[in-house]
Amino acid sequence: MLFQVEMDVGIPTDADPVKIDTLKAIEKAQCQELMTAGKWRHIWRVAGRYANVSIFDVESPTELHNLVSSLPLFPFMTIKVTALCRHPSSIHEDDR
Amino acid sequence: MLFQVEMDVGIPTDADPVKIDTLKAIEKAQCQELMTAGKWRHIWRVAGRYANVSIFDVESPTELHNLVSSLPLFPFMTIKVTALCRHPSSIHEDDR
Amino acid sequence: MLFQVEMDVGIPTDADPVKIDTLKAIEKAQCQELMTAGKWRHIWRVAGRYANVSIFDVESPTELHNLVSSLPLFPFMTIKVTALCRHPSSIHEDDR
Amino acid sequence: MLFQVEMDVGIPTDADPVKIDTLKAIEKAQCQELMTAGKWRHIWRVAGRYANVSIFDVESPTELHNLVSSLPLFPFMTIKVTALCRHPSSIHEDDR
Amino acid sequence: MLFQVEMDVGIPTDADPVKIDTLKAIEKAQCQELMTAGKWRHIWRVAGRYANVSIFDVESPTELHNLVSSLPLFPFMTIKVTALCRHPSSIHEDDR
Amino acid sequence: MLFQVEMDVGIPTDADPVKIDTLKAIEKAQCQELMTAGKWRHIWRVAGRYANVSIFDVESPTELHNLVSSLPLFPFMTIKVTALCRHPSSIHEDDR
Amino acid sequence: MLFQVEMDVGIPTDADPVKIDTLKAIEKAQCQELMTAGKWRHIWRVAGRYANVSIFDVESPTELHNLVSSLPLFPFMTIKVTALCRHPSSIHEDDR
Amino acid sequence: MLFQVEMDVGIPTDADPVKIDTLKAIEKAQCQELMTAGKWRHIWRVAGRYANVSIFDVESPTELHNLVSSLPLFPFMTIKVTALCRHPSSIHEDDR
Amino acid sequence: MLFQVEMDVGIPTDADPVKIDTLKAIEKAQCQELMTAGKWRHIWRVAGRYANVSIFDVESPTELHNLVSSLPLFPFMTIKVTALCRHPSSIHEDDR
Amino acid sequence: MLFQVEMDVGIPTDADPVKIDTLKAIEKAQCQELMTAGKWRHIWRVAGRYANVSIFDVESPTELHNLVSSLPLFPFMTIKVTALCRHPSSIHEDDR
Repeated sequence: MLFQVEMDVGIPTDADPVKIDTLKAIEKAQCQELMTAGKWRHIWRVAGRYANVSIFDVESPTELHNLVSSLPLFPFMTIKVTALCRHPSSIHEDDR
Repeated sequence: MLFQVEMDVGIPTDADPVKIDTLKAIEKAQCQELMTAGKWRHIWRVAGRYANVSIFDVESPTELHNLVSSLPLFPFMTIKVTALCRHPSSIHEDDR
Repeated sequence: MLFQVEMDVGIPTDADPVKIDTLKAIEKAQCQELMTAGKWRHIWRVAGRYANVSIFDVESPTELHNLVSSLPLFPFMTIKVTALCRHPSSIHEDDR
Repeated sequence: MLFQVEMDVGIPTDADPVKIDTLKAIEKAQCQELMTAGKWRHIWRVAGRYANVSIFDVESPTELHNLVSSLPLFPFMTIKVTALCRHPSSIHEDDR
Repeated sequence: MLFQVEMDVGIPTDADPVKIDTLKAIEKAQCQELMTAGKWRHIWRVAGRYANVSIFDVESPTELHNLVSSLPLFPFMTIKVTALCRHPSSIHEDDR
Repeated sequence: MLFQVEMDVGIPTDADPVKIDTLKAIEKAQCQELMTAGKWRHIWRVAGRYANVSIFDVESPTELHNLVSSLPLFPFMTIKVTALCRHPSSIHEDDR
Repeated sequence: MLFQVEMDVGIPTDADPVKIDTLKAIEKAQCQELMTAGKWRHIWRVAGRYANVSIFDVESPTELHNLVSSLPLFPFMTIKVTALCRHPSSIHEDDR
Repeated sequence: MLFQVEMDVGIPTDADPVKIDTLKAIEKAQCQELMTAGKWRHIWRVAGRYANVSIFDVESPTELHNLVSSLPLFPFMTIKVTALCRHPSSIHEDDR
Repeated sequence: MLFQVEMDVGIPTDADPVKIDTLKAIEKAQCQELMTAGKWRHIWRVAGRYANVSIFDVESPTELHNLVSSLPLFPFMTIKVTALCRHPSSIHEDDR
Repeated sequence: MLFQVEMDVGIPTDADPVKIDTLKAIEKAQCQELMTAGKWRHIWRVAGRYANVSIFDVESPTELHNLVSSLPLFPFMTIKVTALCRHPSSIHEDDR
């Protein structure tokens, strides 16, 4: 099932940049692994802000929580989740 | 270029249901025509609300405005537009 | 899976009370049928307001949407949906 | 009587992880003790956020305050309380 | 137990003034009956607005809901309920 | 004249607990002195939050400001003031 | 004592213009009478909106409420009241 | 001097379309006359919404108010005004 | 021309009190100098909060910005500016 | 295409002023370079606040993001982006 997840990242301006860069690298690797697995179906950058709009395709809200809360930048994020379902107007088979 | 468009539909409870059903049918046809043309890339129903989350792929903000404002239910909608861009973590070629 | 659904009901003060009473009776019957079926697990009145807090147990966001949007008072409601999952501290087997 | 309590937890990102883990362990033990006692009737994790939705069954607002404010993570929480009462549509005897 | 109830009254400007005056008279009588019974402990007008701040002393959230929702102006009100409890600094025996 | 004062207290989680306890003791003593003097007519704890709802009975907004801003926890508070006046439905002589 | 009163006026677009013009004329006369009496010390138009910022100098919140609620456009206004007091930096004797 | 003016237009869905079209035609003519006069320096459509962002160059807030409030669609607009001034980084002489 | 300026001051609770007292003394001197010059026409304390409501009478938004941003407490303030103009109901010549 | 970008700058009050001044100088240089290139078409200071309203003219949301996120003060900014398009009432050829 699909969930829209909007993630706003707020790194404290006095954080250690080396530590943050490490976290970002792990974050990117986890994201791409989940994309390859089909769990993280889309990710777009919000223009002008350190934020993204994502679409997850998971088995349950529990799986969604486990995936999102294990991201290394999770403690720095403000997150909004929206449960989605197929729209009767969609022509795409996999817009579940 | 991509835009996330969130549409909340608020039909007055005393509206003429026949007229509204006609507008909905035209809306659906326009939506599917735009999906076929690749302009309206995704549409998902927000679970539990008369609302959708959509992704448009257009040439410009002007084209986006023309498409959205010509929808027959446009006068009944509260709309939020967010400009998107490619995310460096995306593995999909067409997540432009 | 579980969803918290918060429903605020706003009946226009000039609505036909007979028609509204009919809708309320149908609403109550549908609610109780869904509670018996185990889909609508809990419903509580919010003290002092024409509103309720409910917990739904459904197969998917799509099923949630179909159940909620078919309620006769749906056009009069402002609805907020929150996806829930099992909490690691819960001792109840069925707090899924 | 029943209260819905929504708890959002915000741990400062520079907090001592050992100290926080200790607080979390105590929090979990207190939660489960209160669940066993029937005071904390339900707890669900909000998918994608460090937050929960809970239902308390207490003698009074005073007892609610004493229970919630004695949680070790209370100083890190933003809390919203909603007084609930039995809904006329409920079929469950103990949905008080 | 005590609840703070904040009531904002919004009468449509095209409502029938005779009908509204009748409702207001009944509202006042019900209010004073509840004050005499000790259920509605305090009521103050918010200066400059058609609104009041009230303190109710009731047996349960259910009793609160029954009292408030039976007010004739209830359909015109936006209501906010806050559960209160005794403050450790209070010197008044009956500031329960 | 009467003012409703809502005080939300936010102590930084890294504050010195000994210093805070000292401030709280002074705060309580000042509160009780003002209650005895009839200036601070009511104080109730908001259930589940480090917050109170209070009713002050003062000569002027200036006196209100002097009393509130001299509380030792004032720098940690978010405060909302609402001017109140006698409600025509009140049966209490001193609900001024 | 002084109160800042912000008044936003929202006339329904289908209101009878003759009736509204009559109300506006009475409103202006009442305003000027109160200004002459020194009760309504200042009134400024908010540039670009049908709204004003006013300073009232009254004996009590009750007097403020009586003055404001007797304005003929009161039912069309959204009003915000802020209690003011003398600022220690002011050099004006009558900035009470 | 410059003001940013954001105008959101909300035409009731049951308004007479002929009357609205007449108002829109007058609105456009007034807008273009003011643009020619240099008073209304910029106007942009907000993509996807019946709204615009405008920059006015006027002698005073009073002139701004007179221009904006004389627009025929003014009663249907929600308006936000922001006073602007020259930015020290600007390289344009007329970015006053 | 006139602007209403609302200033909320938020001093971090761990700031150096000696440094802050110095800034406050300079702030007061600057304020009184501007009041004497007629630029800062009114200042009132908001009762119960570390905040003020002020009326500035300046030549332009630029002059307003220069005056406000040169206040020593400016970095600690949340500021809201509202452009004002003469109200047709005002009887005061200098309520410009 | 055009985007309105509103930037609110929030420098922590305990930041190193020398480091911040260096960032501001680089920021100004980058801004002016982009203005010269025609990418950053307008920038205005918001009167009374450390904030600006800007108009960017870019090839795509991606270019907008790259320009804005490379500003040295980006980590200190709260940013709001609004996609704009040509308004049918505009008389200016280059109000694209």
